[in-house]
Amino acid sequence: MTPESTSDVISSERVEGTNVYNKAGEKLGSIDDIMIDKRSGQVRYAVLEFGGFLGMGTDRYPLPWNMLTYDTSMDGYVVPLDKAKLEGAPRYAETQAPEYTPDYSRSVNDYYGVTW
Amino acid sequence: MTPESTSDVISSERVEGTNVYNKAGEKLGSIDDIMIDKRSGQVRYAVLEFGGFLGMGTDRYPLPWNMLTYDTSMDGYVVPLDKAKLEGAPRYAETQAPEYTPDYSRSVNDYYGVTW
Repeated sequence: MTPESTSDVISSERVEGTNVYNKAGEKLGSIDDIMIDKRSGQVRYAVLEFGGFLGMGTDRYPLPWNMLTYDTSMDGYVVPLDKAKLEGAPRYAETQAPEYTPDYSRSVNDYYGVTW
Repeated sequence: MTPESTSDVISSERVEGTNVYNKAGEKLGSIDDIMIDKRSGQVRYAVLEFGGFLGMGTDRYPLPWNMLTYDTSMDGYVVPLDKAKLEGAPRYAETQAPEYTPDYSRSVNDYYGVTW
């Protein structure tokens, strides 16, 4: 799950900015940020930046980390999401990030049907 | 283990730039990057930026993530390290980051006496 090869780890700076595609090969956006569980140190969400024009008005979509698979041929992550699914997904403006409370996290996980 | 309060998660962008202190309250540097296990999504290392002058010539020190404790009164992370220990620690120049192979990771972990 990474753009690198011989390392066992991937840098957060390297993940940020990586493109995200759906299984049809359509670009959905790029990773803007990574949300890490405070207690366990487990990455919970990759935050997808999507929409807007020339960087203005883009929205942020938290995607459960384990939905992402790195595809070396695409040089990006692939997620099993079509654009319609994404358009109805939990999102927020860059400047209005919510607190990731247990309720908020649950709403995101429920939308994508993931558990951990 | 985070600068935030009501969220269960912390943003990688928020961690990056956070100051790191030793238990005596001396500033050791700041977090430059985060290294994430590719397979498990577990954060393994916070990369400390330390040394140099006006941003030039700084070194990078991978610190095992579970050595860091967030201290709200310091608004930064505290690690159980003195400067002498850090001066002998595994490091690299910003532009010469190594591959984090199993051997490299083991050398870092061994230096700090941590296992996972």
